[in-house]
Amino acid sequence: MSDRATKRRSRTGGRAGAATRRGTAVIEQMPWKPPVNMDRPTEPLSEEGVAAIHDGAMRILEEIGIEFLNHEALGILKKAGCTVSGENVRMGREFVMEWIAKAPSELTLTPRNTDRKITIGGKNLVFGNVSSPPNYWDMALGTKVPGTREMCRNLLKLTQYFNCIHFAGGYPVEPVDVHASVRHLDVLFDKLTVTDKVMHAYSLGKERVEDVMEMVRIAGGLSHEEFDASPRMYTNINSTSPLKHDIPMLDGWMRLARRGQGLVVTPFTLAGAMAPVTMAGAVAQSLAEALCAVVLAQIIRPGCPVAIGTFTSNVDMKSGAPAFGTPEYMRATQMTGQLCRFYNLPMRSSGVCAANVPDGQAMWETSNSLWAAVQSGTNMVYHAAGWLEGGLIASPEKFIMDCEVLQHIQRYMEPEIVATGPDEIAIDAIKSVGNAGHFFGIQHTQDRYATAFYQPFLSDWKNYEGWEAAGGVWTPERAHVMFKEIIASFEEPHMDPDIRAELAAFVERRKQEGGAPTDF
Amino acid sequence: MSDRATKRRSRTGGRAGAATRRGTAVIEQMPWKPPVNMDRPTEPLSEEGVAAIHDGAMRILEEIGIEFLNHEALGILKKAGCTVSGENVRMGREFVMEWIAKAPSELTLTPRNTDRKITIGGKNLVFGNVSSPPNYWDMALGTKVPGTREMCRNLLKLTQYFNCIHFAGGYPVEPVDVHASVRHLDVLFDKLTVTDKVMHAYSLGKERVEDVMEMVRIAGGLSHEEFDASPRMYTNINSTSPLKHDIPMLDGWMRLARRGQGLVVTPFTLAGAMAPVTMAGAVAQSLAEALCAVVLAQIIRPGCPVAIGTFTSNVDMKSGAPAFGTPEYMRATQMTGQLCRFYNLPMRSSGVCAANVPDGQAMWETSNSLWAAVQSGTNMVYHAAGWLEGGLIASPEKFIMDCEVLQHIQRYMEPEIVATGPDEIAIDAIKSVGNAGHFFGIQHTQDRYATAFYQPFLSDWKNYEGWEAAGGVWTPERAHVMFKEIIASFEEPHMDPDIRAELAAFVERRKQEGGAPTDF
Repeated sequence: MSDRATKRRSRTGGRAGAATRRGTAVIEQMPWKPPVNMDRPTEPLSEEGVAAIHDGAMRILEEIGIEFLNHEALGILKKAGCTVSGENVRMGREFVMEWIAKAPSELTLTPRNTDRKITIGGKNLVFGNVSSPPNYWDMALGTKVPGTREMCRNLLKLTQYFNCIHFAGGYPVEPVDVHASVRHLDVLFDKLTVTDKVMHAYSLGKERVEDVMEMVRIAGGLSHEEFDASPRMYTNINSTSPLKHDIPMLDGWMRLARRGQGLVVTPFTLAGAMAPVTMAGAVAQSLAEALCAVVLAQIIRPGCPVAIGTFTSNVDMKSGAPAFGTPEYMRATQMTGQLCRFYNLPMRSSGVCAANVPDGQAMWETSNSLWAAVQSGTNMVYHAAGWLEGGLIASPEKFIMDCEVLQHIQRYMEPEIVATGPDEIAIDAIKSVGNAGHFFGIQHTQDRYATAFYQPFLSDWKNYEGWEAAGGVWTPERAHVMFKEIIASFEEPHMDPDIRAELAAFVERRKQEGGAPTDF
Repeated sequence: MSDRATKRRSRTGGRAGAATRRGTAVIEQMPWKPPVNMDRPTEPLSEEGVAAIHDGAMRILEEIGIEFLNHEALGILKKAGCTVSGENVRMGREFVMEWIAKAPSELTLTPRNTDRKITIGGKNLVFGNVSSPPNYWDMALGTKVPGTREMCRNLLKLTQYFNCIHFAGGYPVEPVDVHASVRHLDVLFDKLTVTDKVMHAYSLGKERVEDVMEMVRIAGGLSHEEFDASPRMYTNINSTSPLKHDIPMLDGWMRLARRGQGLVVTPFTLAGAMAPVTMAGAVAQSLAEALCAVVLAQIIRPGCPVAIGTFTSNVDMKSGAPAFGTPEYMRATQMTGQLCRFYNLPMRSSGVCAANVPDGQAMWETSNSLWAAVQSGTNMVYHAAGWLEGGLIASPEKFIMDCEVLQHIQRYMEPEIVATGPDEIAIDAIKSVGNAGHFFGIQHTQDRYATAFYQPFLSDWKNYEGWEAAGGVWTPERAHVMFKEIIASFEEPHMDPDIRAELAAFVERRKQEGGAPTDF
């Protein structure tokens, strides 16, 4: 499914590298180069543990069943041999395993800029912006406010600006100043013009899904046949835990399956609330909810590309509030990774925190979740930049702070750090310096110093006195200044004027038609 | 070497658990229970990579040699068969491997409260406070100031207070208001009375080392024979990279070796400055510097307990400033872990950052370094709480923030999170809730909710509105309030009044004798 030549080019810079130089003068960042995870995953489960969770997921599907509220989906599943009772659907493990075996182990998504193609699966690791917070917070406001189209556009500019952000997920903040009937049209126009990265459609009714597919097709300059030939975009659906899939989510899921686009299913199972209080049970339930959606997609179009998401965390049992980036969250993510490899399906997880502002807590929770993504063998990291308050707030400062951590991960996965050839062991260099002096000036250092180490764009490595002389600026304030500069100097990626006009005309026509119904 | 009964007791709470309830009313924290690292280490090196770094370390010892500035050490090494030329010592790889094979794979340290015994080696993981910053910073001061005895005492109170801090390293801040000749006497008196955890001696001249050993012996109520019978304390020495061991460090090293106390050797090899710019070369050099000290200790007292430390990071090649918690730091730590297992020696690493204040940067750098410790199979984590500005500042807020991350690691290593028995898969619970409702009220949840999940003491999981109503307090400000409360309510651990009087008399006598020379 992947085009090796293009992949190689985008990995090593090439045309993508050239493209990234546009409007990136504010900071020196790493080039576009989605990491390849060279580490063996962290696997807390034994083989028996994997078998026990698999058995649990299968028993849920066999003995308890999942409710499919969408009657078209019910018909398809019944015809394929599932036991349908009202809206409850049960299916046997052989049936499940047979259908999910048809799903490919990798999913390649090609946006309008084909150099921004991403592969989800194998050892590939891609990052996307925060998606769907209703609210926004920044250092200048100093308080939480409902999102607007301008805030959304600004966060999309960050999505485009940072090379370590590989796909544009859902709306980085909900622009509640745009009426819900036409919101998808305005935001998709913004997304498609402000960024050239992989697009997402919310499965919130057929009009929205069809409009987004059409806009992505237009923006890519594609015929309908070309669009249908390979995944150009994706949707992400959530089950209504426990054990339920709703009408619009399934509708969008089936529409994208039919057109061979990317499919991600992410149950949101908070242990102790909508899933068992025990993490293994919450993971088993999450997998059952995900796998039955994969089965549905494979029945509709065998071989269509899917990924399984995890959003298993826990609640604070004192308050019921969701917790993120906890030890339990990390282990649930790693366990899900083991099961995704067992099912040979690509995996999605997230960069998350419960913190309300971009402070120390925000970064230890987010670091925990991002490194858990790495350790679990996750392929696609949602909400990798910009998330606060359990996903209820998007923040540009947090976005920029998270990008520093994402660059750490990108650099961490470069094999040259751990190279052990004679040039790296460097006996001659050590001999030349001997028992005195230093390595600053020697040729071995001079030949390598420019690229030897990670260069941060936001971390301040000055000593205290230097930092104080520069104003004594804490991390979020530094990120705020950078945010303003990036927005001020932002240049949109190139789009053919005819395509842009066609997109605008589509939006205009659909608005005149009334957009999408808002009674979902 | 370890006392199984005592170990089991301290792991499961027992008497230690009872002891921790003293004066711990400010927060609800986890009990004393040093983590056992259940994860397979992250191993970036192939077998050939391990062999290449080992070969590099051996060639440094064989072909280049290490300078031993201490003539007593030179004599011992020469007599044992090393090639000594002036102060340069070379030794062959068979000789090295033969001597280091005599070192035990575990090191057990028993402080005056024997319930606080710790084991360094195997899968054990222990954390210590920040050590040796000359300066102090807190939120009330808002600026960097030289350390005082009161600041040092306060940080020692945090060391004692937090159950996730398992040993008292060096001075948590240098009390520069106490004259250097008697500083070790005052601080050790404070350390031994304010805490009952494992003690450390700086190897800064024979008087200091001998005084500390004597004070630890008195505080433990031990005879000289009892003190010498097993490790009651330890020293940590640093080489003077590149390739040099200085006079007082070697003196302390040999004194503790003779008395069978704990020995940790930690070269400080910043790649690009005092070590090659390539990480594998910096690690090889660090190992060469460490292993020759291990050889010396084993010659002096075969079987004496040692651990190898790593402090391999990189400098910012633009400014020469040291960088911490970087991708290169993480990989160097993991590589050192692989080599420590190759040599069958316990390992020390650190919790570090370059940040000047306890903000987001501080926490992503510190998280990177602490998780790298976990991933590398580190046994002993120095500077695990309280470190800022590359070790030049100690901060009580940072100390408390770090303890939250340390508790994450402790909880993360509890096997019950990833248990997969029938009670955890919880099919009956899932069946009982079915496709609607929630898990809050069911018996399966009720039976487990109190202990099911990690409970933070500093992270604020309230939603934004709740957090704002509570004052909108950011993480370091919350930590500052907690710091004040802990200090205000702190109670010293029990010490026999006779022993306290004997300690005080010893300090008084040694002060009258003039303390230690200050011309080191």
